Amino acid sequence: MTEAAPRAQLLSVGSELLAGETVDTNAAFLGRELAILGISLDGVRLLPDDREAIADAFREARATADVVLATGGLGPTHDDLTREGLADALGEPLTADPMLEGQLRERFGAIGQMPESNLRQALRIPSADALPNPIGSAPGWWVDRDETVAVLMPGVPSEMRRMFAEQAAPRLAERFALQPLHVGSVKTFGVGESAVAEWVGDLLERPGAGVNAGIYARDDGVHLRFSTRDDSELLPPLIERASTILGDAVWGTNTDDLASVALAALGARGAATLASWEADTHGSLLAILAAADGVQGAARYLGGVLDAGGAPSPPVADAVVQLSLLPQDAHGRSRVRVALLGHLSMPMREIRIHGSGEQRLRRAAFGALDQLRRIRPT
Amino acid sequence: MTEAAPRAQLLSVGSELLAGETVDTNAAFLGRELAILGISLDGVRLLPDDREAIADAFREARATADVVLATGGLGPTHDDLTREGLADALGEPLTADPMLEGQLRERFGAIGQMPESNLRQALRIPSADALPNPIGSAPGWWVDRDETVAVLMPGVPSEMRRMFAEQAAPRLAERFALQPLHVGSVKTFGVGESAVAEWVGDLLERPGAGVNAGIYARDDGVHLRFSTRDDSELLPPLIERASTILGDAVWGTNTDDLASVALAALGARGAATLASWEADTHGSLLAILAAADGVQGAARYLGGVLDAGGAPSPPVADAVVQLSLLPQDAHGRSRVRVALLGHLSMPMREIRIHGSGEQRLRRAAFGALDQLRRIRPT
Repeated sequence: MTEAAPRAQLLSVGSELLAGETVDTNAAFLGRELAILGISLDGVRLLPDDREAIADAFREARATADVVLATGGLGPTHDDLTREGLADALGEPLTADPMLEGQLRERFGAIGQMPESNLRQALRIPSADALPNPIGSAPGWWVDRDETVAVLMPGVPSEMRRMFAEQAAPRLAERFALQPLHVGSVKTFGVGESAVAEWVGDLLERPGAGVNAGIYARDDGVHLRFSTRDDSELLPPLIERASTILGDAVWGTNTDDLASVALAALGARGAATLASWEADTHGSLLAILAAADGVQGAARYLGGVLDAGGAPSPPVADAVVQLSLLPQDAHGRSRVRVALLGHLSMPMREIRIHGSGEQRLRRAAFGALDQLRRIRPT
Repeated sequence: MTEAAPRAQLLSVGSELLAGETVDTNAAFLGRELAILGISLDGVRLLPDDREAIADAFREARATADVVLATGGLGPTHDDLTREGLADALGEPLTADPMLEGQLRERFGAIGQMPESNLRQALRIPSADALPNPIGSAPGWWVDRDETVAVLMPGVPSEMRRMFAEQAAPRLAERFALQPLHVGSVKTFGVGESAVAEWVGDLLERPGAGVNAGIYARDDGVHLRFSTRDDSELLPPLIERASTILGDAVWGTNTDDLASVALAALGARGAATLASWEADTHGSLLAILAAADGVQGAARYLGGVLDAGGAPSPPVADAVVQLSLLPQDAHGRSRVRVALLGHLSMPMREIRIHGSGEQRLRRAAFGALDQLRRIRPT
């Protein structure tokens, strides 16, 4: 049997998040990592750079959570107030830590004079252990008091991710009796969310004891997601049943990504290289293909061209995917034309997509990749 | 004099947000749009698909805010519970609205049979006005009760954005005495956040009565941001003074983006077209260039190639930017080599960037673009 997972709350600190100047990608990263670690993220709050608001949020979160994480507000400037907020919430004084100050001066010694404002980053409360930040000037804090752990981390994603992986995650795993979450997904393209829900029916509403099921509409299609903290063996039969029901709408499972699946399909049909040629998509196909991880036996993406009237020549490749996005109708539907030219080819097909703005451009690209992954030997 | 801006809270509903399966980009969009409209977003909460948690969050937010917005949880499935949460918080019953049901059936009539689960989307409480959703099945709600306005919108970004722009924003502007926020930015590359803060000093800490100032480290460099609800004429002198102090670290102001600035600089130097050639950056340069808006007189980006050993030929262009990312050292620093070949050329330069992961790849690309925008006639 499972013990209840520790419950976490996250505070994302920074007025730039509320002003919409920065998208809080840290919350999604930590949600994912905490779930895998066996900690349930119950809530996230985005907070302004306001000492009182931060202190209140720490008090409130500490009242219900086992772990309170915070990102951001550890910088050197006057509006970085996360240290102050937690100190206020705990009623502890902030004083300069000579060891932290020495580390800061040493770090700056290598690259020039340290601005005096950076001294704020050497402040500490008595309950806090400093968490090293090997790639930035802001150390984190680990505060284990009154049965609740608080973890302060920088807001810069690369620094936060490294500090979480190297410092916070191992300490959390040791501090709590953690049961990792097992997750499995079935990923489809071309079928709507309600239709998928109806087709799989019971599998979604009653996936079995100890298993949670959810359905999510993404740019790369509708995903079914099963998770459990019990036996990981509960998941494969569910994935298999869902895949059978959803048939050839399914392009992958678990961590598969559609670009890699498409490149693998092309590789299996004999194309070692792929180039792209797209019109009216702002390069969305090229961006998605370029970011795909290369795997053994898959076609390698060489690059592509944007067709804005005078079509330049795409890089020479075994296959060239051609994508053309047609205008939207009044219901927000667009048509997409996809073809594959070269040694490995596919006649032009037309598919429909929904959405507007950037989402529409990404869906057009995923629609093209969905056609490529369906390719059969000619 | 300014009247106090109405205060808003946002609830982003969806367990997928807490599980890190989806990044909540809606919060940043709404923060930006509300600020422009003259509404201050004081906080955002990410909530699970839990009726009680949603109801509690509505109660708490309504206690302090003038406007409570919610996105997500309006879908047709059993875990879409935002309607229920607000109904509970207000103590109002949910009943089927025959007009909404008719609209839903009509919408589905055009594309096939309506799944019965979609009927949940026709539920309404007596205080709610339905907000039309022309590109999706979930109508929104506008609830003006007890001096507080609640606005429910779908979680799908394209549907939310359109509903906000067409329905919510005009109603909010009419309902409150709104004073729009004026915002100005100075954008730099190649100088750290603390150094920028020290250089501009007083301008950041005391920008003047009625003006707020902030500093933000982004992938495309460090930005200074000034904002006011008073006279928009307060901003240009601040922008000018900051630009003078920061000198040639400044690549743009306000809504400028670095890719467009670089393409404009190349265009001004006589290059009508640009292609790219990059190594070890996962196509980050190509993705950023492809997404840039084309403007009159700027070089047009034609596409690019990824060099993974056997270099393919880039598309033929007036200038080809070549970017090569070198390995990281122990401090998380990388070197980037940038050159420009063709009619318009630039000898190879080496710059340093910080960061890891995807951020490092994007900073390498922005480092290259920063070199291109500095190009002088040869």
